[in-house]
Amino acid sequence: MRTGSKADGEGIQRRPTINDIARLAGVAKGTASYALNGRPGVAEATRARVLAVAAELGWEPSSAARALSGARSEAVGLILARSPEILAFEPYFMTLISGIEAELSAHGYSLMLRMVGSHEEEVEGYRRWAGRRSVDGVLVQDLRTEDQRIPVLKELGLPAVLMGISEGAELPTLQSDEVGAATEVVRYLAALGHRRLAHVSGPTMYRHTQTRVAAFRNACAEAGIEVTSLESDYTGEQGAQLTRQLLIAQHPPTAVMYDNDVMAVAALGVARELGRDVPRDLSVIAWDDSPLCRLTHPPLTAVSHDTPGYGARAVSLLVQAICGERDTGVHIYEVPRLLPRGTTAPPRMAARERDGST
Amino acid sequence: MRTGSKADGEGIQRRPTINDIARLAGVAKGTASYALNGRPGVAEATRARVLAVAAELGWEPSSAARALSGARSEAVGLILARSPEILAFEPYFMTLISGIEAELSAHGYSLMLRMVGSHEEEVEGYRRWAGRRSVDGVLVQDLRTEDQRIPVLKELGLPAVLMGISEGAELPTLQSDEVGAATEVVRYLAALGHRRLAHVSGPTMYRHTQTRVAAFRNACAEAGIEVTSLESDYTGEQGAQLTRQLLIAQHPPTAVMYDNDVMAVAALGVARELGRDVPRDLSVIAWDDSPLCRLTHPPLTAVSHDTPGYGARAVSLLVQAICGERDTGVHIYEVPRLLPRGTTAPPRMAARERDGST
Repeated sequence: MRTGSKADGEGIQRRPTINDIARLAGVAKGTASYALNGRPGVAEATRARVLAVAAELGWEPSSAARALSGARSEAVGLILARSPEILAFEPYFMTLISGIEAELSAHGYSLMLRMVGSHEEEVEGYRRWAGRRSVDGVLVQDLRTEDQRIPVLKELGLPAVLMGISEGAELPTLQSDEVGAATEVVRYLAALGHRRLAHVSGPTMYRHTQTRVAAFRNACAEAGIEVTSLESDYTGEQGAQLTRQLLIAQHPPTAVMYDNDVMAVAALGVARELGRDVPRDLSVIAWDDSPLCRLTHPPLTAVSHDTPGYGARAVSLLVQAICGERDTGVHIYEVPRLLPRGTTAPPRMAARERDGST
Repeated sequence: MRTGSKADGEGIQRRPTINDIARLAGVAKGTASYALNGRPGVAEATRARVLAVAAELGWEPSSAARALSGARSEAVGLILARSPEILAFEPYFMTLISGIEAELSAHGYSLMLRMVGSHEEEVEGYRRWAGRRSVDGVLVQDLRTEDQRIPVLKELGLPAVLMGISEGAELPTLQSDEVGAATEVVRYLAALGHRRLAHVSGPTMYRHTQTRVAAFRNACAEAGIEVTSLESDYTGEQGAQLTRQLLIAQHPPTAVMYDNDVMAVAALGVARELGRDVPRDLSVIAWDDSPLCRLTHPPLTAVSHDTPGYGARAVSLLVQAICGERDTGVHIYEVPRLLPRGTTAPPRMAARERDGST
């Protein structure tokens, strides 16, 4: 299946082929191909000559040739619809991207990344990529109850992997066991003697937030523990403000779980500002563990995820989907693990009661 | 300049055009084009019909058509050759990327992102992108003394903007005034009464590190101040370790500047661990200001950069280069500003001397 093979004598009129380039550069066709595709194993001088000839002829790899070679666009897309401040400051996303990149590069793929301001712009972004065939598939983050992206991705026929909580989407889905992890946190705090907890969650429009809030509440009810849930926008500012609000209440909680590490770090600052000792007056747990959690003093107790592994696994599911494998299953990647460090302990009152009883 | 116009009757044999799709979908050519390019203003049902017809015909926008429409690959490339841990944990890169994205999206461009393990892999990455025309141009970070990337980018003819310190590269270059900012830091610390400083720098293979170290040393020499420079790998771990080493020395510095905010945060933890008061026993300055600097207690004095603006400006220079503008100048984006917060003060000894003299 060649194009333009009839017009072999014309040279410049028809679309130049790798054969033309190889002939004019005086190299084998394989060498020309390697040089043009930027692959190793071609001498510098040869590569330069081949590229010069290709540039002179105005050579471009044809779509057909690319499709035939199985190369496609060699890119996978990721659109993040969160504010730039949150993306910049949450180690989560770069950690996730590093895992995605590691697996992509094993497949010779690149990542096409976009940051947009809204759910609607994200949908438009997929349409644009699909229309231009800029990517072979996409990874979808932050699933919502009424998620406009799912029907559009199906309509576009763009291979996709959903990362997070979703049911009935009929697309391959990868998630962590949020319920298991939230339950473990509550049971641990109950075992330490805490009887009044708070949960500072992320935005409740996300499915993973809804799941986590419900799991936290259910586990508290089961353990007979009082719980307050407060919604945040994930910023350190709101984390600090909500912590202040909790600590100055008439019956403050003795332990708070934060839905990211940034808010937990901010909570440590507020506790110090109000003269409360962490962990004796207040236990703090961060959902998401990053090097940040090990740099604070005391180091933060955190719920640890294998975020790079999660990103890599999502890519391998996506590559399968791009290769045409039909998979609409929900894959559980892991149960995140609780890592107790220096910010959790029995509450002062419970410790006193225990001391008194001995 | 149309392709395949001779073979109008054949239908499936030649490459399908937008005209074919419009005809079969029963819509105007403009509508078909809008639908195929994922642009707004097309009814959902119409869009679905157009895409279905296009998929059936195996339509792909031809390279020629894309070049003619000025659309090219509509992507700009960024390769980061740093360890995933550093990328994940330094707010700098996501902040930079958010500025890059904001400007790219104004031009309808996407960002192609790769993370690689070495300088050599980065060079291979550019070859691959150039060979496949995956990107229209690239942004180049972390310039080195012997930078292999510059000759390769020129050889490939790939439009590029160098971000950082570079001379004689004959490529458009955008940099901040590192010398001015480092000098301001030293003068400020001298004015507070500090006479023994330390500078925990990044890896000295980077040009910007070399420039900063030299500027810091020169300003100290000018002010008659003792200075120790220590090289780090930018991690919080090394920041902590080098801080410990400095503080337990026989004549510890009274102020330390760290080349990123992560190491400065780690330094606060070490000071607390060793029972030193910040800022009375130790003043701490972070190069790079992020929300992290405002969350610590006390909040970190920092050298603040307009990182999103810097990323955006680099994109606008790159777009000019892609459009064929010849620019080999060095553009100074800004002089970073010193933002004193709670981690800098006169050293205890200087304060005592001053108190004694009143």
